[in-house]
Amino acid sequence: MSTLSQESCEACRADAPRISDDDLKILMPKIPDWTPVVVDGILQIQREYPFKNFKGAMAFSNQVGELAEEAGHHPAILTEWGKVTITWWSHSVKGLHKNDLIMAARCDEL
Amino acid sequence: MSTLSQESCEACRADAPRISDDDLKILMPKIPDWTPVVVDGILQIQREYPFKNFKGAMAFSNQVGELAEEAGHHPAILTEWGKVTITWWSHSVKGLHKNDLIMAARCDEL
Repeated sequence: MSTLSQESCEACRADAPRISDDDLKILMPKIPDWTPVVVDGILQIQREYPFKNFKGAMAFSNQVGELAEEAGHHPAILTEWGKVTITWWSHSVKGLHKNDLIMAARCDEL
Repeated sequence: MSTLSQESCEACRADAPRISDDDLKILMPKIPDWTPVVVDGILQIQREYPFKNFKGAMAFSNQVGELAEEAGHHPAILTEWGKVTITWWSHSVKGLHKNDLIMAARCDEL
């Protein structure tokens, strides 16, 4: 099992580094259901979680919201009937920080 | 004040009509903060609500979710730090049904 989820999110400052290509290659296989996407030129990671209805989707969105509040790092949560799409990236680095991959791994454990 | 929010959502069947251009022209001014958007060829209406933080955004998303469950009609709810973007359309008619505009008006009253 990946222990990525157990790593600590570090404070993400404007001068924090984006994740290196080498680290990205090592860590992405630990969250195999996440897909890199580029939105407005910003690299992000995204995963869609299926649910049986809206209620289940909303409940999961709230769980992710609680996780985000605890970590002080927040994703985009798209809640629809039967699915939730989570997108992580770091505004401060205009791309991916290691924190984003840690948070993705934590979402997968919910 | 608009009373659009007080109208009833009718059952939306596959053979239900999309809203007519004439009705759209009459009703859109009643929800002036909503913008028509076309996504994958499907006409939808969208509004962004600003919030001070993530917690406020998540709370509003839940309120919209409850409204949706009560009406049996569900939007896409995009929850982010400081804002929520709501998008309404009707899968069954691959576009806008009058229900969508009624639900938009109800969101504005939350």
